Amino acid sequence: MELTTQTAAPSRTQALAALFSPRSIAIVGASADREKYGNWLAERAVAGPRPAFLINARNSEVNGQPTFQRLGHVNDDVDLAVLAVPAAAFESAVDDALAAGVRAIVGITSGLGESGVDGRHLQESIAERVRAAGAVMLGPNCLGVLDTTTGLDATVNSFVPGPVALLSQSGNVAIDVGQQLAQHGLGISRFASLGNQADLDAADLIDACVEHEQTEAIAVYTEGVKDGRRFTESLARAESAGKPVVLLAAGRSQASARGAASHTGSMVSSQTVIQAACNAAGAELVASPYELANLMQALVTTNLPTGGRVAVFADGGGHAALASDALDQAGLSVDPFSDETHHRIGALLPNSGGTVNPIDTAGAGEKDPTVFVRVVEALGQANDVDATLLTGYLGGYGEYSVELAANEVEAARDLAAAVHRDQRCLVAQLMFDQSPAADALRSGGIAVYRHVEDAAWVLRRLAARQERKLTGVPPQVASEPQLERGDYWGARRALAEAGIPFVRAHRVETEAELVERARDLRYPLVLKALGDDHKSDRGGVMLNLRTEEQLVTAWADLQARLAPPAVSMEEMADLSAAVELIVGVRRDPTFGPLVLVGIGGIFTELLHDTVSALGPISTAQALDMFQRLRGACLLDGYRGKPSVNVAAAATLVAQLSEFAAAHPEIGEIECNPVAVTPHTAVALDARIILS
Amino acid sequence: MELTTQTAAPSRTQALAALFSPRSIAIVGASADREKYGNWLAERAVAGPRPAFLINARNSEVNGQPTFQRLGHVNDDVDLAVLAVPAAAFESAVDDALAAGVRAIVGITSGLGESGVDGRHLQESIAERVRAAGAVMLGPNCLGVLDTTTGLDATVNSFVPGPVALLSQSGNVAIDVGQQLAQHGLGISRFASLGNQADLDAADLIDACVEHEQTEAIAVYTEGVKDGRRFTESLARAESAGKPVVLLAAGRSQASARGAASHTGSMVSSQTVIQAACNAAGAELVASPYELANLMQALVTTNLPTGGRVAVFADGGGHAALASDALDQAGLSVDPFSDETHHRIGALLPNSGGTVNPIDTAGAGEKDPTVFVRVVEALGQANDVDATLLTGYLGGYGEYSVELAANEVEAARDLAAAVHRDQRCLVAQLMFDQSPAADALRSGGIAVYRHVEDAAWVLRRLAARQERKLTGVPPQVASEPQLERGDYWGARRALAEAGIPFVRAHRVETEAELVERARDLRYPLVLKALGDDHKSDRGGVMLNLRTEEQLVTAWADLQARLAPPAVSMEEMADLSAAVELIVGVRRDPTFGPLVLVGIGGIFTELLHDTVSALGPISTAQALDMFQRLRGACLLDGYRGKPSVNVAAAATLVAQLSEFAAAHPEIGEIECNPVAVTPHTAVALDARIILS
Repeated sequence: MELTTQTAAPSRTQALAALFSPRSIAIVGASADREKYGNWLAERAVAGPRPAFLINARNSEVNGQPTFQRLGHVNDDVDLAVLAVPAAAFESAVDDALAAGVRAIVGITSGLGESGVDGRHLQESIAERVRAAGAVMLGPNCLGVLDTTTGLDATVNSFVPGPVALLSQSGNVAIDVGQQLAQHGLGISRFASLGNQADLDAADLIDACVEHEQTEAIAVYTEGVKDGRRFTESLARAESAGKPVVLLAAGRSQASARGAASHTGSMVSSQTVIQAACNAAGAELVASPYELANLMQALVTTNLPTGGRVAVFADGGGHAALASDALDQAGLSVDPFSDETHHRIGALLPNSGGTVNPIDTAGAGEKDPTVFVRVVEALGQANDVDATLLTGYLGGYGEYSVELAANEVEAARDLAAAVHRDQRCLVAQLMFDQSPAADALRSGGIAVYRHVEDAAWVLRRLAARQERKLTGVPPQVASEPQLERGDYWGARRALAEAGIPFVRAHRVETEAELVERARDLRYPLVLKALGDDHKSDRGGVMLNLRTEEQLVTAWADLQARLAPPAVSMEEMADLSAAVELIVGVRRDPTFGPLVLVGIGGIFTELLHDTVSALGPISTAQALDMFQRLRGACLLDGYRGKPSVNVAAAATLVAQLSEFAAAHPEIGEIECNPVAVTPHTAVALDARIILS
Repeated sequence: MELTTQTAAPSRTQALAALFSPRSIAIVGASADREKYGNWLAERAVAGPRPAFLINARNSEVNGQPTFQRLGHVNDDVDLAVLAVPAAAFESAVDDALAAGVRAIVGITSGLGESGVDGRHLQESIAERVRAAGAVMLGPNCLGVLDTTTGLDATVNSFVPGPVALLSQSGNVAIDVGQQLAQHGLGISRFASLGNQADLDAADLIDACVEHEQTEAIAVYTEGVKDGRRFTESLARAESAGKPVVLLAAGRSQASARGAASHTGSMVSSQTVIQAACNAAGAELVASPYELANLMQALVTTNLPTGGRVAVFADGGGHAALASDALDQAGLSVDPFSDETHHRIGALLPNSGGTVNPIDTAGAGEKDPTVFVRVVEALGQANDVDATLLTGYLGGYGEYSVELAANEVEAARDLAAAVHRDQRCLVAQLMFDQSPAADALRSGGIAVYRHVEDAAWVLRRLAARQERKLTGVPPQVASEPQLERGDYWGARRALAEAGIPFVRAHRVETEAELVERARDLRYPLVLKALGDDHKSDRGGVMLNLRTEEQLVTAWADLQARLAPPAVSMEEMADLSAAVELIVGVRRDPTFGPLVLVGIGGIFTELLHDTVSALGPISTAQALDMFQRLRGACLLDGYRGKPSVNVAAAATLVAQLSEFAAAHPEIGEIECNPVAVTPHTAVALDARIILS
């Protein structure tokens, strides 16, 4: 077998293909015990469409099938080996499999990387051998793999076939998501349980699903990303390929920011990082399996809205009112129609109906369900409607009579066809969401929800998708560590050299230097004691020194109290027309530099009004980040103040992000505050914390 | 029949009893047409447990039952008459019914009050006749009434019997809510369709359900409240009787604040008003039928948590992580257990389980479901846990084997019993929420949800209920209109007389007066042109006049530009250590005076950070409102500033609210800003807008 691996080592791509579409499969650790995983796997493998070999060191028969004592005893080629052996036997089982020339391994076995340091080392050495052999490995500590498009079933969970690939770090969450997707009529193309990601990780598997023709969208549940940038690049590739990724990431409540030393550090959580990655790549981050399934249904079927103006189309005043409220709450608008649209709709409905927005059929649909189709067709012609929310009783009329049931389903089918013909965005909220009419809508490519707030939330997410500006994943700037631990002056100098504007300043060590060099500066001045990171906490900053006399007195005071090795003497910025920003970068262990901007004072500290992005970023991205702050209007001249120079501020942010990206040794870097005036942006403080 | 009404007019309470528990019933407008409402009502009435008389002017038979031509032709006593006649025949049908001595009328008929001015007048005169006769009327334009505890079925919708009274202004929304309550295993005690509320309104019906022994909680859907204060008082009575009211109020997105002239006015929406009413009365306001049903399930069954510390109890790491995230998102805490609780839980679970919080059974429950009971019993002893969220796969184990199915259901039953025995708060989120084990939990009084965010949201609402401070409904202060339309000085004087502190000021009409009276004040001074409501917009306010010369120049300028009839000359407040508040009251047409407080500037204008309450309010209530502002910390000395005199501010707010309540002629009243310093609170401006 060595010959095989040496002369024609299959590429990882080919090996990955073998994971999902093997010519043959072996279950190593196939068990005769009906309560064991190795038994269930064996039963499913044997029932599958491809040759299946059961390996068991002791038994000669499992579920009535003959077994082999070792994988090497199988005479046929084995593409995929599923290893359900005890932890102590895992290493030799992998070696056997590689020796037998398998291209893909699924490690069900637990008790390896997740069990401690020794387990991690062993797991890593195993993974290296797998890679060296040109093979791939899923897991270990995983629940297996399934591909409904190739009939591969090497797991114990069942899924309805369909267009969604499901990659999950938890078996129960995968079942949960699968159940909920099925309720939306969505099935699974591929399922892979991520396990410990010793070899294949989420990024590899996303890549594999992007290449997989029958997969239209990808659902991912993760509890921790191995290589954040590579993961983000995979998300971006999926998006480029037109295959939306919906990501559910657990651990939002555990601050990754423990031990942060700067404001920036303390404000960057694991959730902030992953949200920034999704923003860059165009993936959709959700908070629960329910949100995942709700959004996925729409992404697979629904055209994006052309904006935020929603027509509510109800068959009852109560649902019309509740839908309008839910849309308003979600940040969408339900504005009165133009006269043209109003008249077009009015011509189709009885006088008692609502025709201005919301639309209310006022019972017309109960008499003749085709009115639903005609109204939707009319909305298809309206240029003042970006999306429609159909809400109410439709789906329940069928209970009145057999004839109405047939008409209702036909209307649902025609309505769906009209929406797609006109390339319109319509989602439905139906009280009878599990009715034949609801199924007809779903089959016709309409997302149907039971609860109006969910329909409104989905529309908001779709509108945000239409509005978004994808920035792509910034390149990692590779570089050797250069900076050494230093004080404020060191940070200031390094940043100034990198182009960050500061107020004018001198470093002075003696009173003579102080007096001499002050002549070069414009009063009022500021003195900052150097050599200590907590200068302001300890009274090391003296502000608003208006005369040489005040300057000298302040100097003496600093010397007496703190005896600093040197002092930074700076011009004091005039903040009367300035907006203060906080600008920082924190390097995440897996996602790399994360840029944070916020408006200083209460906005950042009290309201946590900050925006983050994967760095480095461009000036244009920085401008876009400013726009997304809740306090953005402060930059545009709030309450009669002049607007400030956001371009200068954006340049500063971009420069700081470039600097941080070029210095992998920086854990946190921050300029707080940056004073942005109508004319310029200057940093008033700087801090660099090495990691 | 006149004799009857004159000598023994039944009280409204008795008449209301007849509405839900009539000795006999008549359907006026009973129809032979199987597609008509009058046919469906007749069928249900005849099937009921009490004598039913069908009235039809033309047919002699409906559904095989004999009919009467007129109600007066019935020889027996008729308690309840349901009128399903055309609008034109409604008035005489009511008169017939009253003449026949009915005590309760249900008006199904539409086309009356909702059809225009004439319809409203007719409807009102009919309602007056009903009241004069000592009878009651539901509707018109309603869908009927039902009482599952008396077998009364005078509507066309069906509901499962249960403990919840359902009062709804929309038939479809009632069906929607009923469906969703049924999914939670909750049925309906009484259903009443509110219709036009010409006689009986939501308040009357709430009162009737409070008196109804078998009703444990009340669900209300309303699109507009007739008499806000009376409605609020009914909500408060229900709360006092231990019968929670969950209120779904449509129309949140339609600003009731149209045409508002002050900041206060523009910030008070119909939602603000109804939220204030619920806060005062202890009712629960929700945003959708889904929220209504989710919260109702918990209110009917679940003990309130003792605080915000939640134990997550999961059977799987994924669901443990997602639940922790959801609780964190909802504002609850999932803190590590005390050592004592940790050890207590640890003794029950395998080593691989989570025992610190979240708890993870790590498969133990799958082997032996009684572990769920033992862990819940252990949590029942923990004094560092206020509530438990049970989450995950429980309910699904039953699919593995018949034995496990039985054990699982038994464990669910025992778990529920343990929770109630220990008087603990526990809610469950189960993937298998429609399983026998889930049903066993529900039967045992545990609220079960399918989605973890819903369980977390419910726990947050329950915790808020535990923390709330009910203020009760303030009394309406009856008074004759006294104020006449005036300018700023008029408002200032009226408020100052009512005890509101202002900065010192004089009204001056001539330059001589100006100079003379300025000697009495402390510079810097402010001049405000009187006689115009928009003085600051038109440059009618001159600030920071530091000398007599500046004062006279400003005066001349004002005279030249605006020629005001008079000027208010005021001391200028020192705002350097002050927090500026906005304090206002708007009189809602049905709910009366609504008090609003906010912190000035960006908090109010940009972040809409305001708090409202039904007025008048006490000083204690005002202090509580301050606490609920997001910017509350600004009052406590933010960023090294001294804390300000909130007691003085609260006194001012309470006084302003008393003043507004005593003056029914005031539409809006506002002091903006009120400067609160470390020592005092003074109004710097005042505005009164008569309605």
